[in-house]
Amino acid sequence: MSHYPYPMLHKPNMIWSKQTEQTIDLKVHEWIETIGDTEVDWSPYDVTILGVPLSKSSISTSAASENPDAMRQAWKSFGTYNLNENIDLAALKAVDLGDVKQHVTDIASSHQNIEEAMAAIRSHHPHTLPITMGGDHSITAMLVKGWKKTHPEETIGILQIDSHFDLRDLKIFGPANGTPIRNIIESGTVKGEHIHTIGLHGFFNAKELKDVADQNGIRYTTMKQARKEGIQQVIAHALEQLNQQVDTIYLTVDMDVLDIVHGPGTPAAAPGGMYTEELFDAVQLAGEHPKVKAMDIVCLDPRKDIAQITVKNAVHTMLSFLTGYCKRRNKG
Amino acid sequence: MSHYPYPMLHKPNMIWSKQTEQTIDLKVHEWIETIGDTEVDWSPYDVTILGVPLSKSSISTSAASENPDAMRQAWKSFGTYNLNENIDLAALKAVDLGDVKQHVTDIASSHQNIEEAMAAIRSHHPHTLPITMGGDHSITAMLVKGWKKTHPEETIGILQIDSHFDLRDLKIFGPANGTPIRNIIESGTVKGEHIHTIGLHGFFNAKELKDVADQNGIRYTTMKQARKEGIQQVIAHALEQLNQQVDTIYLTVDMDVLDIVHGPGTPAAAPGGMYTEELFDAVQLAGEHPKVKAMDIVCLDPRKDIAQITVKNAVHTMLSFLTGYCKRRNKG
Amino acid sequence: MSHYPYPMLHKPNMIWSKQTEQTIDLKVHEWIETIGDTEVDWSPYDVTILGVPLSKSSISTSAASENPDAMRQAWKSFGTYNLNENIDLAALKAVDLGDVKQHVTDIASSHQNIEEAMAAIRSHHPHTLPITMGGDHSITAMLVKGWKKTHPEETIGILQIDSHFDLRDLKIFGPANGTPIRNIIESGTVKGEHIHTIGLHGFFNAKELKDVADQNGIRYTTMKQARKEGIQQVIAHALEQLNQQVDTIYLTVDMDVLDIVHGPGTPAAAPGGMYTEELFDAVQLAGEHPKVKAMDIVCLDPRKDIAQITVKNAVHTMLSFLTGYCKRRNKG
Amino acid sequence: MSHYPYPMLHKPNMIWSKQTEQTIDLKVHEWIETIGDTEVDWSPYDVTILGVPLSKSSISTSAASENPDAMRQAWKSFGTYNLNENIDLAALKAVDLGDVKQHVTDIASSHQNIEEAMAAIRSHHPHTLPITMGGDHSITAMLVKGWKKTHPEETIGILQIDSHFDLRDLKIFGPANGTPIRNIIESGTVKGEHIHTIGLHGFFNAKELKDVADQNGIRYTTMKQARKEGIQQVIAHALEQLNQQVDTIYLTVDMDVLDIVHGPGTPAAAPGGMYTEELFDAVQLAGEHPKVKAMDIVCLDPRKDIAQITVKNAVHTMLSFLTGYCKRRNKG
Amino acid sequence: MSHYPYPMLHKPNMIWSKQTEQTIDLKVHEWIETIGDTEVDWSPYDVTILGVPLSKSSISTSAASENPDAMRQAWKSFGTYNLNENIDLAALKAVDLGDVKQHVTDIASSHQNIEEAMAAIRSHHPHTLPITMGGDHSITAMLVKGWKKTHPEETIGILQIDSHFDLRDLKIFGPANGTPIRNIIESGTVKGEHIHTIGLHGFFNAKELKDVADQNGIRYTTMKQARKEGIQQVIAHALEQLNQQVDTIYLTVDMDVLDIVHGPGTPAAAPGGMYTEELFDAVQLAGEHPKVKAMDIVCLDPRKDIAQITVKNAVHTMLSFLTGYCKRRNKG
Amino acid sequence: MSHYPYPMLHKPNMIWSKQTEQTIDLKVHEWIETIGDTEVDWSPYDVTILGVPLSKSSISTSAASENPDAMRQAWKSFGTYNLNENIDLAALKAVDLGDVKQHVTDIASSHQNIEEAMAAIRSHHPHTLPITMGGDHSITAMLVKGWKKTHPEETIGILQIDSHFDLRDLKIFGPANGTPIRNIIESGTVKGEHIHTIGLHGFFNAKELKDVADQNGIRYTTMKQARKEGIQQVIAHALEQLNQQVDTIYLTVDMDVLDIVHGPGTPAAAPGGMYTEELFDAVQLAGEHPKVKAMDIVCLDPRKDIAQITVKNAVHTMLSFLTGYCKRRNKG
Repeated sequence: MSHYPYPMLHKPNMIWSKQTEQTIDLKVHEWIETIGDTEVDWSPYDVTILGVPLSKSSISTSAASENPDAMRQAWKSFGTYNLNENIDLAALKAVDLGDVKQHVTDIASSHQNIEEAMAAIRSHHPHTLPITMGGDHSITAMLVKGWKKTHPEETIGILQIDSHFDLRDLKIFGPANGTPIRNIIESGTVKGEHIHTIGLHGFFNAKELKDVADQNGIRYTTMKQARKEGIQQVIAHALEQLNQQVDTIYLTVDMDVLDIVHGPGTPAAAPGGMYTEELFDAVQLAGEHPKVKAMDIVCLDPRKDIAQITVKNAVHTMLSFLTGYCKRRNKG
Repeated sequence: MSHYPYPMLHKPNMIWSKQTEQTIDLKVHEWIETIGDTEVDWSPYDVTILGVPLSKSSISTSAASENPDAMRQAWKSFGTYNLNENIDLAALKAVDLGDVKQHVTDIASSHQNIEEAMAAIRSHHPHTLPITMGGDHSITAMLVKGWKKTHPEETIGILQIDSHFDLRDLKIFGPANGTPIRNIIESGTVKGEHIHTIGLHGFFNAKELKDVADQNGIRYTTMKQARKEGIQQVIAHALEQLNQQVDTIYLTVDMDVLDIVHGPGTPAAAPGGMYTEELFDAVQLAGEHPKVKAMDIVCLDPRKDIAQITVKNAVHTMLSFLTGYCKRRNKG
Repeated sequence: MSHYPYPMLHKPNMIWSKQTEQTIDLKVHEWIETIGDTEVDWSPYDVTILGVPLSKSSISTSAASENPDAMRQAWKSFGTYNLNENIDLAALKAVDLGDVKQHVTDIASSHQNIEEAMAAIRSHHPHTLPITMGGDHSITAMLVKGWKKTHPEETIGILQIDSHFDLRDLKIFGPANGTPIRNIIESGTVKGEHIHTIGLHGFFNAKELKDVADQNGIRYTTMKQARKEGIQQVIAHALEQLNQQVDTIYLTVDMDVLDIVHGPGTPAAAPGGMYTEELFDAVQLAGEHPKVKAMDIVCLDPRKDIAQITVKNAVHTMLSFLTGYCKRRNKG
Repeated sequence: MSHYPYPMLHKPNMIWSKQTEQTIDLKVHEWIETIGDTEVDWSPYDVTILGVPLSKSSISTSAASENPDAMRQAWKSFGTYNLNENIDLAALKAVDLGDVKQHVTDIASSHQNIEEAMAAIRSHHPHTLPITMGGDHSITAMLVKGWKKTHPEETIGILQIDSHFDLRDLKIFGPANGTPIRNIIESGTVKGEHIHTIGLHGFFNAKELKDVADQNGIRYTTMKQARKEGIQQVIAHALEQLNQQVDTIYLTVDMDVLDIVHGPGTPAAAPGGMYTEELFDAVQLAGEHPKVKAMDIVCLDPRKDIAQITVKNAVHTMLSFLTGYCKRRNKG
Repeated sequence: MSHYPYPMLHKPNMIWSKQTEQTIDLKVHEWIETIGDTEVDWSPYDVTILGVPLSKSSISTSAASENPDAMRQAWKSFGTYNLNENIDLAALKAVDLGDVKQHVTDIASSHQNIEEAMAAIRSHHPHTLPITMGGDHSITAMLVKGWKKTHPEETIGILQIDSHFDLRDLKIFGPANGTPIRNIIESGTVKGEHIHTIGLHGFFNAKELKDVADQNGIRYTTMKQARKEGIQQVIAHALEQLNQQVDTIYLTVDMDVLDIVHGPGTPAAAPGGMYTEELFDAVQLAGEHPKVKAMDIVCLDPRKDIAQITVKNAVHTMLSFLTGYCKRRNKG
Repeated sequence: MSHYPYPMLHKPNMIWSKQTEQTIDLKVHEWIETIGDTEVDWSPYDVTILGVPLSKSSISTSAASENPDAMRQAWKSFGTYNLNENIDLAALKAVDLGDVKQHVTDIASSHQNIEEAMAAIRSHHPHTLPITMGGDHSITAMLVKGWKKTHPEETIGILQIDSHFDLRDLKIFGPANGTPIRNIIESGTVKGEHIHTIGLHGFFNAKELKDVADQNGIRYTTMKQARKEGIQQVIAHALEQLNQQVDTIYLTVDMDVLDIVHGPGTPAAAPGGMYTEELFDAVQLAGEHPKVKAMDIVCLDPRKDIAQITVKNAVHTMLSFLTGYCKRRNKG
């Protein structure tokens, strides 16, 4: 029995970039801890990160199942220090819990696992902020249900940043990526009037879905309106309204809200969308709000991506949200 | 003799996406009618769509000939309902007339067919708004000549959204994609002072072509000026001027007006161009104007495109123009 | 009411290449008929073609669901006349029946549709040769079961050209693309000893799966052996053996049998595989055999493909098989 | 006035790779001379290289016009010394004459220039071996006519390595890339019986074209036959037959003769084709034959190419032919 | 001895686009002169362009060594006339001096050559404006040292447009692309307080590097601040401050300052960056300032680029800077 | 302190593919052990794997430094069981020692580390078979020197499978990827007559390098000869000769020996090369030989690769070599 006898070698580790070992930088992949086999003290974590590699529930072909690993691999391109705000995310303790187990041919079983995963996180890590890397948008319904299961007394609101209403007919599609908002409404998990959708595009939502939104009292702002009014104003106003109605605000970001130029790697990438500059501001603001308690990022298909544009934008979205969260904590 | 005995099958149809059959959405490819072999009542159409698969007349290598089919295939990614404006294009009856026949080695003969096609449309479908999907910019000269042939009494003006003047020397190039504006001027089809070009870039127009523009009384606005003044103001002003001069305004959109980031799929893609946000506003405004009676979209090479960015932007350009047209009709 | 008044236009049709209208060539997409809404005489068809756009049942991410349309679009690159054999496939009457309907989130329901589709084809078109364009390999189990349902009295054998045994554990994966052979054995549809697998690669089949194969009496030949003995000899020998055992031989071709250079567009593309030259010979020989009564082509992911190499190879595989079938009929 | 004062710089030259200046290797781009503005002694050249950047005459979209420059840029990846044969091409004096001028919109005028270019080469450089880098296959008809114009007394034969007959109807297509062989027959330039086509694929030649070939006495060998008999035997036999019939053999290589794996960068890339190993042997053998006096390489679209596979294979084809030519001269 | 006898040919020249010979346009590649073997009069040049094909000194893998040639090849897509400003760059005499010689395995020797190249330019061409096309950012330290060597009496300031401080520890990395600013400070070439860095992104600079910047008195503006204040204001203010402190301002542009959408072709491409519109304005303003006497463009990896977006943006950056320089001279 | 409380999750691990946890397959990445922080028993290993992420020493731009990780990530696509030979590599105990540390700007220091790494492996793990994943070919010289340092008494022979001699002038290039064989000869590490190079291509080796080879008594076989004689015969013969001369045979495989179609991802990818079928046979045979005691795989640039063809072929090369090694041990 002996120790590693090779001072001129780096131990093999696929994701920790070797060169950074010599440097003073703390990279995101070095900051976010992972789980080993030994006992750990779970109590100190502030942020729990969950991967959901499911996209069989997508209406069109999607490899969003590969997004959790794609985002993890892109972590090493980001540091923890946000020079814009002079905030270091390393002040938070964050842990990557891993990926929800998926069944190869039984989507309902995979969905059940997702719901249970969120319920378990709320039980085992109630003091943490859960961030989920999807997967497609069907998982949002499961995650919100999982939350509700552990906190049945809470009123939940949804801040949805999306190019689509996601209100298609559950009876036709089942729990697909086009139906999560319909799903949480029809299951009684969240009320329509506690949902605000921001960033809807023209030509990508049927008139009938707008009618469903109206009938359910969902509030929404198109991308065009949002840009005219200022994205920060729109987000601030939505948070204010939800603040008066609900106990917990769940933030869900469908990456297809981005303009096709800024988010080419989404199955429904389309013209007329949000710029990343606007998205980063939006989620940072949401992160600052005390009632925003969970977040997911969905519908990013890394195989469709070009030059890692969308994946890197998704990581930045997560970090911008956490920047807001740090500011919230610094205030509090 | 019997009917199709397979309830569990979709009939084969390359372009109608199967999943939408179950849904309430009306997609653009389902809305735009095509022509069968049987007799039809031609009178009710509002919009006639024409494909011109010609790019052999391009100065540099171009596969813009493949654009009409590329745009048609991208139609299925768009719905007819524009949530931004609460307008449903399905209020218009639209028909895809098909593609102009092209000769393999005789460009002049192909050009002749294009001119005749527009003349025929004006004869057979005079009440419709023709929209042409090019092909390269050489076709604009033919289309305008075809219009003039059927309406010799009309004064025609051109609203050109383009990064180039397209005023190169006909004697050197012939009727190429660099000469259409020169062509319609020299042929006496349109006067220089009835032409307004918007979106010209720096470094992509020779000084001598600016002189040709000036000598012919062409009005123009560079991209930089247009952004400073506001694209909507510039377009509105140009339409106002043309309104006082001409009977018919022909709108031609060269997709290379877009910044290379928004329009990578054009042979002359370049920095310093228009954003789609600006282009969509521009053409919607043009669509609202009562004298804008025809439109074309040219110089989009789908083989150069990345992630369908340019093709989807072109379809959105067409739909934005039609949104304006619906608003015009609603007003009228 | 009037006829199409545009002699200078081609009617819009996304897939019929315009230029071929002028020519004497008969292209495959022009030869294979499609189904309209009117009554047709179903009796004369020799070949029925079925698309199965399902790949949610794949173990790894796969867009094989897009293969049926990808193959159809590639048909126009092939003529019906095989100069090598002086055989014109146009002597056969072929019809494309369309695609099996798929549920967005219920894989079992999609599988049920596939089984019923084959059963219906056997009922409504018993005299035709069905060719199925997958989809992933899970569909083979459904297609064979559908056949068995209509012909319960027949003993079915399988000639499988594949780099994998596809004998993984059904209890873990369900009816996935790694389990179809296990599925048809365990369901009693086909006996292990009536299965011959050709083209298995090294390093891509677990020792335990070899043991399952051995325990079930499956015969198999590795790619290395097959090349040494000559692919034609191996195929001929397998057909001969099956001929003495079964009534019907079902040919299934998993495109991942090809070397990664010849079939980059398969989810499991790997070194050490078959060359197309060998594959075309193999299926042509199978097509000649009187007991080979159905064929499928599976596990081709067009999104992974490069330069259409795999898609075109798949179409050629289908046409080589039909060349054999023509030779069989000419002999008969 | 002074000399270049920068010993630490390489002078700017886009194509001469800097590192090779220090080395002993002679690269192909360094070996092949180019023409400056000053007077030169034209007499000593052995090989004249011509570029023909024309592909507007192609039936399908093609950027083969960019091939001459693509091949030139790939020269620097090859040395002049062929280790296989211990032959150094640098024993030949070779000159790149440049590119035939092309008209933007008048294909007939471009074709006229090509014919005149070959005629001029035969007048000004009668002792050289002309090698033409196309361009599409339409140019072969012009090049052969140009040869005939200068040598009206010679009987010309054609050795065509191609997947297609190229015998389509001139009246429909004009002088396109599908008609050159028909063109030289119908114009009386070459007799059908003096043409041998090798490498024809199944499914890519209409039955009617085979009939045209038969009626004109053209000899041909399919790829399948050629591989069975051995490509060297087939080529040797064809050369022998032509040797007894004609004064001059013109070798034309359509790169689409290659299997799609070996030649992805051709407009008609297809399965079932030649391997480069076979092609290099074929052209080397042709190069050795004393009556083979000119060669062209056509229908390579560098924009369709992957990883420069086809372009590098084309350069190797040219160099293999020249290796044969060196062997011929060494024998002689 | 005779002249070129082929009027129907263009002489071979890889980079001069043939078509432009017929036209009135002056393209950038035609404007910028290159050096031949004969004696020239060096005195009249206004601008000297230098290529530095070195990226072995990069921390992550980079092919920025290929950028000088990539930019040169993209010159032909730009004209010299800037329509926005009605300025023709052809009023300047510009010469491409070529590339600094690089050693294959000795980076220090390559760096030495770079330093000597700038020193030599300052000696031999003291009246010219040197523009350097990198290469990675390590070269900036060498270029500034080379300047200092010839002008030891001058106080040099740096205007750095960059997403990173480039202040990493020289002792760990050596003269790499992460250390040039540290390098010129520690070597005493430039004082920290004479450096202004604009465009720094969040998450891409370690807290410790900010501390190094602060300790050295470096002034900096994040991208977020710069956009809020207006990029032109920020640049103007920085120039004003430097104007009062130094004799010479060296402008260095690291292309990774661009947002990943506008500059996908940089090793460190990241979200949250500058738009080209802003960059072009910034460098044009810098070009107008009388103390800005040299400029470089670094860290552009053409192999990572998509659709030439980054390379074309880099050329436009150079031309925008020269536009400012022309305005300066016109004023002066 | 508690255990991982999430039965529905997989722990995060970037490279262990989740689905395989449920299965019976042993994948290569699961078989090859990695090193943790705790003490381990080093004695039982049979195979030691080393990564060398260096390609700054390459003559042309190369990202071969990324190959060790690319190969590791591709391990999960391979099982340990070789069905062709009925051999399970899992009978060997293998460990991935990690990567040799690299300096950013000091290539000599990186080379020193490589030499020391091999020396240390020979000291600490003398009973193992070291396999090195490069990096470029410069590393072979260092690895062989490292071996020699620990075993100064051994005579070493080289079996080089390569398209190039790698005998360029050390004085010009330094220890680059074009000079390793020259390096080990001139340093007295290996004698020229103890080197056999197989697979040399035509047109990619200067005549002068052949002369250097001849002067040094190097034996070599071109690819063309090797294919004619049979690759297995050639390899067997070379091993036999070396067996009589040396104590230890070092096998080095430069992936550019492959034909460009089989190995597009090498900086010098070229036509006329080896097929993988031949390469796998060659290295398996070498693996069987008792004197072959180390192996490396070099010059694979994953960024140039297409569809992972070259990376997967490299992994298969390593596994084929180990198959031979298992056969050797089974014999022994």
